[in-house]
Amino acid sequence: MIPPDPGKGPSHDFHLTVPDGDDHERLVCRTCGFVNYVNPKIVVGSVVTHQGRFLLARRAIDPRLGFWTLPAGFMEVGETVADGARREAREEANAEIVIDALLAVYSIPRISQVQLMHRATLARPDFSPGAESLEVRLFAWDEIPWGEIAFPSVVWALNHWRQVEGQAVFVPFTNPPGETGDRPLAP
Amino acid sequence: MIPPDPGKGPSHDFHLTVPDGDDHERLVCRTCGFVNYVNPKIVVGSVVTHQGRFLLARRAIDPRLGFWTLPAGFMEVGETVADGARREAREEANAEIVIDALLAVYSIPRISQVQLMHRATLARPDFSPGAESLEVRLFAWDEIPWGEIAFPSVVWALNHWRQVEGQAVFVPFTNPPGETGDRPLAP
Repeated sequence: MIPPDPGKGPSHDFHLTVPDGDDHERLVCRTCGFVNYVNPKIVVGSVVTHQGRFLLARRAIDPRLGFWTLPAGFMEVGETVADGARREAREEANAEIVIDALLAVYSIPRISQVQLMHRATLARPDFSPGAESLEVRLFAWDEIPWGEIAFPSVVWALNHWRQVEGQAVFVPFTNPPGETGDRPLAP
Repeated sequence: MIPPDPGKGPSHDFHLTVPDGDDHERLVCRTCGFVNYVNPKIVVGSVVTHQGRFLLARRAIDPRLGFWTLPAGFMEVGETVADGARREAREEANAEIVIDALLAVYSIPRISQVQLMHRATLARPDFSPGAESLEVRLFAWDEIPWGEIAFPSVVWALNHWRQVEGQAVFVPFTNPPGETGDRPLAP
């Protein structure tokens, strides 16, 4: 079930076919039989607060360059979900975070993403823009630049954070009713 | 950040390099620039009960052919997490399930999997082996064939189910302390 590491093989000559024992079309290499499974990708991230304010980063990269987002990004191989969320805070905001809870699991089928968003705090009040950020700031709730938020799920996560503020035990949220996140990432 | 659909392109001539603006090595096509991101895969599944008994399927496929497992498998593109868990119950056990809660989020870094396991019940008492199963059965807790379970996370999920039996609101579990699931899938 686990594809071999394509980095270790030669170039592949892919064609679309249904592998033996499968029920979906996949890209299969005519030469070596490698199956290039394309599955949803996992985004790991966090609503990070410090003394009641929310850490947001302004994107230095497309899509949505210049818009504000939470520290979040694609999970990498070889790490846990929590490791990934901590790494993203480090990469985007030079911030060390302490994860407290799983806040939400969002499904965004159009772009085949599952977003695992956490509730976290700053381990210490140090942060600065990483390579993918123009600017990193703490915002009070009323200061959040709602008109300049990069992705719908950032708005969902911030609002979901507020709904369980101070609660130790809660059920992680899923998409708001009727919301598919189905707005293009790129303008 | 979202790779183009490799199914729509010609054959690729991959080499390992760090793409512009990235910080990890990726397989990049010399010809068309397509980046083959390899990210962790999502397994979606459920602990399904009916009148206090647990639905298990005996695997008809490798790895762990002949061993018992929960209805679970790789999430496919274009579906939500819950859709995927329901599809797997249908494919492996011809069972319609009603999902009640997110039971656990397990990280298994060695094989780069994130497993999203749910708590569910049978919508009706109908089930039978799908193409990937030799046999599907309901087991009372004391009848579960613990020595013939396919994967460590199946044991985790069953035990976690018991820990929150009857609880409507609970925090989803992660890996048991010290457990990485780091046992080969294949014998």
